[in-house]
Amino acid sequence: FASKGNKLWGGRFVGDTDPIMEKFNASIGYDQRMWDADIRGSKAYVKALEKAQLVSSEEMEQILRGMDQISEEWSKGSFVIKPGDEDIHTANERRLKELIGAPAGKLHTGRSRNDQVVTDMRLWMRDAITTLTEHSLQLISTMVERASVEIDVLFPGYTHMQRAQPIRWSHWILSHSVALRRDVDRLQEIKKRVNVLPLGSGAIAGTPLNIDRELLRKVEFLFWASLCLTHLSKMAEDLMLYSTKEFSFLTLSDAYSTGSSLMPQKKNADSLELIRSKAGRVFGRCAGFMMTLKGLPSTYNKDLQEDKEAMFECFDTVQAVLQVTTGVMSTLKINQNVMEAALSPDMLATDLAYYLVRKGVPFREAHGLSGKAVFTAESKNISLNQLTAEDLSNVSPLFGSDVSSVWDYSSSVEQYSAPGGTAKTSVAAQVEHLRDWLRKRSQ
Amino acid sequence: FASKGNKLWGGRFVGDTDPIMEKFNASIGYDQRMWDADIRGSKAYVKALEKAQLVSSEEMEQILRGMDQISEEWSKGSFVIKPGDEDIHTANERRLKELIGAPAGKLHTGRSRNDQVVTDMRLWMRDAITTLTEHSLQLISTMVERASVEIDVLFPGYTHMQRAQPIRWSHWILSHSVALRRDVDRLQEIKKRVNVLPLGSGAIAGTPLNIDRELLRKVEFLFWASLCLTHLSKMAEDLMLYSTKEFSFLTLSDAYSTGSSLMPQKKNADSLELIRSKAGRVFGRCAGFMMTLKGLPSTYNKDLQEDKEAMFECFDTVQAVLQVTTGVMSTLKINQNVMEAALSPDMLATDLAYYLVRKGVPFREAHGLSGKAVFTAESKNISLNQLTAEDLSNVSPLFGSDVSSVWDYSSSVEQYSAPGGTAKTSVAAQVEHLRDWLRKRSQ
Amino acid sequence: FASKGNKLWGGRFVGDTDPIMEKFNASIGYDQRMWDADIRGSKAYVKALEKAQLVSSEEMEQILRGMDQISEEWSKGSFVIKPGDEDIHTANERRLKELIGAPAGKLHTGRSRNDQVVTDMRLWMRDAITTLTEHSLQLISTMVERASVEIDVLFPGYTHMQRAQPIRWSHWILSHSVALRRDVDRLQEIKKRVNVLPLGSGAIAGTPLNIDRELLRKVEFLFWASLCLTHLSKMAEDLMLYSTKEFSFLTLSDAYSTGSSLMPQKKNADSLELIRSKAGRVFGRCAGFMMTLKGLPSTYNKDLQEDKEAMFECFDTVQAVLQVTTGVMSTLKINQNVMEAALSPDMLATDLAYYLVRKGVPFREAHGLSGKAVFTAESKNISLNQLTAEDLSNVSPLFGSDVSSVWDYSSSVEQYSAPGGTAKTSVAAQVEHLRDWLRKRSQ
Amino acid sequence: FASKGNKLWGGRFVGDTDPIMEKFNASIGYDQRMWDADIRGSKAYVKALEKAQLVSSEEMEQILRGMDQISEEWSKGSFVIKPGDEDIHTANERRLKELIGAPAGKLHTGRSRNDQVVTDMRLWMRDAITTLTEHSLQLISTMVERASVEIDVLFPGYTHMQRAQPIRWSHWILSHSVALRRDVDRLQEIKKRVNVLPLGSGAIAGTPLNIDRELLRKVEFLFWASLCLTHLSKMAEDLMLYSTKEFSFLTLSDAYSTGSSLMPQKKNADSLELIRSKAGRVFGRCAGFMMTLKGLPSTYNKDLQEDKEAMFECFDTVQAVLQVTTGVMSTLKINQNVMEAALSPDMLATDLAYYLVRKGVPFREAHGLSGKAVFTAESKNISLNQLTAEDLSNVSPLFGSDVSSVWDYSSSVEQYSAPGGTAKTSVAAQVEHLRDWLRKRSQ
Repeated sequence: FASKGNKLWGGRFVGDTDPIMEKFNASIGYDQRMWDADIRGSKAYVKALEKAQLVSSEEMEQILRGMDQISEEWSKGSFVIKPGDEDIHTANERRLKELIGAPAGKLHTGRSRNDQVVTDMRLWMRDAITTLTEHSLQLISTMVERASVEIDVLFPGYTHMQRAQPIRWSHWILSHSVALRRDVDRLQEIKKRVNVLPLGSGAIAGTPLNIDRELLRKVEFLFWASLCLTHLSKMAEDLMLYSTKEFSFLTLSDAYSTGSSLMPQKKNADSLELIRSKAGRVFGRCAGFMMTLKGLPSTYNKDLQEDKEAMFECFDTVQAVLQVTTGVMSTLKINQNVMEAALSPDMLATDLAYYLVRKGVPFREAHGLSGKAVFTAESKNISLNQLTAEDLSNVSPLFGSDVSSVWDYSSSVEQYSAPGGTAKTSVAAQVEHLRDWLRKRSQ
Repeated sequence: FASKGNKLWGGRFVGDTDPIMEKFNASIGYDQRMWDADIRGSKAYVKALEKAQLVSSEEMEQILRGMDQISEEWSKGSFVIKPGDEDIHTANERRLKELIGAPAGKLHTGRSRNDQVVTDMRLWMRDAITTLTEHSLQLISTMVERASVEIDVLFPGYTHMQRAQPIRWSHWILSHSVALRRDVDRLQEIKKRVNVLPLGSGAIAGTPLNIDRELLRKVEFLFWASLCLTHLSKMAEDLMLYSTKEFSFLTLSDAYSTGSSLMPQKKNADSLELIRSKAGRVFGRCAGFMMTLKGLPSTYNKDLQEDKEAMFECFDTVQAVLQVTTGVMSTLKINQNVMEAALSPDMLATDLAYYLVRKGVPFREAHGLSGKAVFTAESKNISLNQLTAEDLSNVSPLFGSDVSSVWDYSSSVEQYSAPGGTAKTSVAAQVEHLRDWLRKRSQ
Repeated sequence: FASKGNKLWGGRFVGDTDPIMEKFNASIGYDQRMWDADIRGSKAYVKALEKAQLVSSEEMEQILRGMDQISEEWSKGSFVIKPGDEDIHTANERRLKELIGAPAGKLHTGRSRNDQVVTDMRLWMRDAITTLTEHSLQLISTMVERASVEIDVLFPGYTHMQRAQPIRWSHWILSHSVALRRDVDRLQEIKKRVNVLPLGSGAIAGTPLNIDRELLRKVEFLFWASLCLTHLSKMAEDLMLYSTKEFSFLTLSDAYSTGSSLMPQKKNADSLELIRSKAGRVFGRCAGFMMTLKGLPSTYNKDLQEDKEAMFECFDTVQAVLQVTTGVMSTLKINQNVMEAALSPDMLATDLAYYLVRKGVPFREAHGLSGKAVFTAESKNISLNQLTAEDLSNVSPLFGSDVSSVWDYSSSVEQYSAPGGTAKTSVAAQVEHLRDWLRKRSQ
Repeated sequence: FASKGNKLWGGRFVGDTDPIMEKFNASIGYDQRMWDADIRGSKAYVKALEKAQLVSSEEMEQILRGMDQISEEWSKGSFVIKPGDEDIHTANERRLKELIGAPAGKLHTGRSRNDQVVTDMRLWMRDAITTLTEHSLQLISTMVERASVEIDVLFPGYTHMQRAQPIRWSHWILSHSVALRRDVDRLQEIKKRVNVLPLGSGAIAGTPLNIDRELLRKVEFLFWASLCLTHLSKMAEDLMLYSTKEFSFLTLSDAYSTGSSLMPQKKNADSLELIRSKAGRVFGRCAGFMMTLKGLPSTYNKDLQEDKEAMFECFDTVQAVLQVTTGVMSTLKINQNVMEAALSPDMLATDLAYYLVRKGVPFREAHGLSGKAVFTAESKNISLNQLTAEDLSNVSPLFGSDVSSVWDYSSSVEQYSAPGGTAKTSVAAQVEHLRDWLRKRSQ
């Protein structure tokens, strides 16, 4: 019976497996992408076996050569998956036996399938994290360089989707860069924990603890992906707002837009919508896997097989999102005039309150008085800086002619010179800080 | 520029699309499975156009013949996807144009891409629901027939994973059959709403309402899949308990078990673990799509493209789970002796309380007295039915020699003869009821 | 030992309960809100017991009078919860015993705690659904009347957050009204299933099936709440966009806005943000309960106690959101001039394509030609309707002087006169349709 | 208008607030539990203001005295919340003004409401993390001491809910202790990030970045709580299995069990079921908050107000679960005889395979041969160690009389002497390792 031949528990079973069950159980459809990690892991393992004198150096050489050939077959696309190859490990092991015969069986001395899966997943995760780190650094670098170039552009900072205070456009860029930087930092923490390679323990009695530790890492990775895409969904939402006709602060490159099959004039920010949407997909995977874990008895249960597809899909999704976001951020055009025209004197009402604070008024009272000034201007249907000296002195006798100094957007942003502030020096310092950080990362 | 040629919004764009963006945006990788629905939808549409005199009958014939040829290509596996075929609709339309030239362009008169997607998805969903219904009926039928055959087997009913009262094994089977029956009923309600086919309206102004209605159906389907698998996860959990060495109530067929690569003696209920795990996966998809929807502005946004993969994956998963569960339920062997040996007199303590109720004791008091009897037996380390007449009369003077009638598991289950009860007639009636229901469904 | 006295399983236990465990286990903190349902349920049950001659009519009268007094105590706020009252059912039963003594014990003949909880939850759910239905109808009615009054206001319909085609403001309102109407319809389906009252069956052997059926209803309710708030999050997102300074289509009433503690000029749409946020909270509850259910063995497990807080919180949240949304929709002011000024000729590009379709051009080709016209206008930096006859004939010789008829927003919306369309008659018909539906509902 | 008087944006608003909106917007109902953190934060802030010469030392003294009095009122339960006290910050500020008049207004110089909320939440989180850490250490300590005492008890280790290999009961305890230890480690990482106190920056221009950083921490805390309870749900599931009648490995203390209102003999492991269920609740909160975050524009949006209830509920839940689990673990009784009687020779089949490996057979082949031996024993209906020398030599001629050494459970567990293994020395070393770790933590 063909599909039985290379089943690992071949000795005992007499019944046949339902083909649907076989497919349900099989993971080769998705775990074959770990072929390289599986081969690297086995090559390292056989070397350890040889050192421990559990295989001879001749056997080791045979196994290594066999593995190299399998690797070449995968690279060239000539590896043939056969019925019964239920996962990548079985497939590689089956092929090794075809190539070198009996010694192939020694490769699994003291190594359970769980050990092997754990090692392969760790090698895969290490590569995956390296890749995602590189794409993240590329994105951050793009954003930082853009922030450096466009440091003089002012536009409204928003809270509650309402214009709040004037800020630098670079300040907006950097606020998202910093969130991404934190994402990279957290990814490195996960990587550190992935780097210790375990081997040579069975499913329970050896180190039952490994399974939980591995699970924790996977779950942390899935959650990391969710958080990272939640950040990017936020950035995409901002950019979508800014690229509406109504805001018109920026124009996406055609390379990241698509048209409408019905409306010839439409140019849709599909790239941003896709970025926004992926936070849902990735968190869904994380939520699904957490639900799968809930209430499981300890040690290994087949339910845990759900981990791989979740990991692969989240990796693929985050990778694509990071690249597309980099493309979007490096090609969008800002409309500086529109951005600056969106600033209005009422956005300086906080500065007006601070004017009074400087004259000794407690902040809460100053806030109330500035609010009254805003209300007066609205009632008269004029802008805040058009209030007359009389209007202002009706609000508070402390307003003098020097109040005119308040009505300057550049001065306003220059007030905030603390680290993270909107002053040009603060923003430039943050650019430098991030450049330094990037330099260290890319060495 | 090749990949531009057949883009639907070809007229306006001048920039190039980033290849990663193109891939990110493309859905052909997964939506090609709707090729048949897409062709059927287009054939129906061109007939409507001809009736409305928007295409000539000659043009209609050309389009129909072209569509038939495309259908044949897909069936034979000879359809070639080209760069720029971003989705199944574009691919089929592109191919139609190659085959019949200009008239192909008329197929989309008054039909937006959204219309087409909606129609295709509905045709696909109709088929999907039919398929899932059939698999569900097959499973229910298997369970009902098993319940009929094994109606005389008693075993412990559990609450809180603790033995509670004697029930029929068939009663357990039927309780899950009824849950599945309700799942089928709810699936039919979704199907009814899918059956009305909309066409001929644009993305907004025509019937902006369609998008919400379609979304609602998809979301309902995803949630249905989650609920259905939550039910099956519960049934799988019961079966896993029953198939532990400690319970030993049943033995899975080898066809639905797998061995361990490390431990030669192990026979694991992998099928049940996989069934249990899939509730997480499917709910994760539902949760992910709900998160994607949250806070979206109304009408169409590209984020909604996430719907298809979620639908396809949930369909595939539920289909496999239903089939595997059917296999498991039709092949497992019960160990009647072990099941019956697991019954013990303390499981009749409720009956003992009712004995007192029949003698006029209020239920709460009777419950307390029966509890005292249980406690006495535990203290003496004997079973409840081994208490002497004196022991019992110390608990309550109302206990007489007729108390011995209580200690009979068969009589105990026969007491509950209401619909849904454990009496043989009740269980048999439920079997008949479900058989009737199945007969009606399969006509 | 005080807290032991009225525990229902008093007979058997000898150890003490850990006070933290007691608190962990207790539900009186939240389920006391069901006091009225519990009393109504018990009153109905004792009448049934009397009919079945399981209590005398005198005992029934005592119980009914006792229950009425307890009801009065709850109404007046004078009911005193005592240590050991772990849930509302225990509390009411304990109080009944204090008031009428021994006969109180008969109230629970043949009724398990599970039966009682099920009945109480159903009565509570029935009331809850009635309340939410009323609030939904109030909201729909507000929206429909507003749509009727403001039927002549045109503004841009958006897809992908980009201006797409001119629509009526009432069309936007109605699209959300229809989504809410569907929510009400689905809520009524749940209500129908809640209305059949079960009683008189034990935890397992009687009707083990009830637990699943009840769970299903609760889960359906939680999911309904999630869907309903997802719809409202979408509507809130639209309104938030429309109320930004940049769109300025509408102004929220001060009653539904708040200011900033820092920025005196800010007026934030807090009400809309809260509405949007609640979809997350409610779906979180649904997801949490689904996760709790996953992999549970069948019948009752204490885990299911999680249902009530989820239900109560979702009810409270949806109720508040519906009321606030009604307030927002009835008090916001639209800025008709701004809305109409936001229409621009490029939004008629689809109409321009249809102009060519009417002259015999296949739609795809017409779409491409219209796109070229848009591109020409953009290149010349003029609006689409400012293209000269020559410009247009360069695009297609079929453009004639009658093309000027295209440049009329009112005519454009009037084209879509099918049900659900933007024509005034279509919108008015939908208003009438919804009014009819509301009339039927409120009888 | 009373409820207007102390609104922070009092100056500008003229309309009234809808009372439902007011309630919807208010957080005083749940954030009053931060009263102490709010007072501590304000006291620290006013000292900073004094240093910066923004308030006089006299004003500072007034404010400090006022704050102390407010603190006393909260402690005694005499603080009266008034209409208009929408959150704890407003309430304390309002009260301060009543107590000390004008200088109260100076407390908020340069401090936005957001700053204040951030500081309060951090102080609260710091305390919360300290509390949860203590409860976790208490639980781990209980488990470690138990593991030390019961180190000689053997019982079956399970994978896939099937008996796999003999392990020490202490090994099971320690595997969960180690998972909890990792939870504590991760909680400390979060604490480190919480410890830096930010102050003196506005909602945007100052340090817009804070909001993201704070969110990240909260989200990390919610996810931590989910992971921790997922671990405990797993441990609870194991214990539930072990406490079924069928396993009978252990008996919960009555203090952590409850009875059935219907079945007098039942003793349910309610504590374990509640522990298991809470993973769903807590993850639901995490999922809900993640959904609320998805797609939000950056900076502050009112949606973020959802954070607090999620944090409080997760804290309360984890705190209760840790305490109840500690109680369960310190009071349960193990049934050593039953545990050891559950060991059977087939659980040594892996050891049988390793016997052959030691004789030079490649592992895969040895595994197959051991499987054949298991199959032979099953066919003959005898246990594995009852196979005759002839039976075994039919399987492999390498089996000799020394095979009898395999059939010893103690020797079997002693084989695994690597760190984390089941050998007595390994387990004892792990106990010591954890005791050391605990000692360091509790200093």
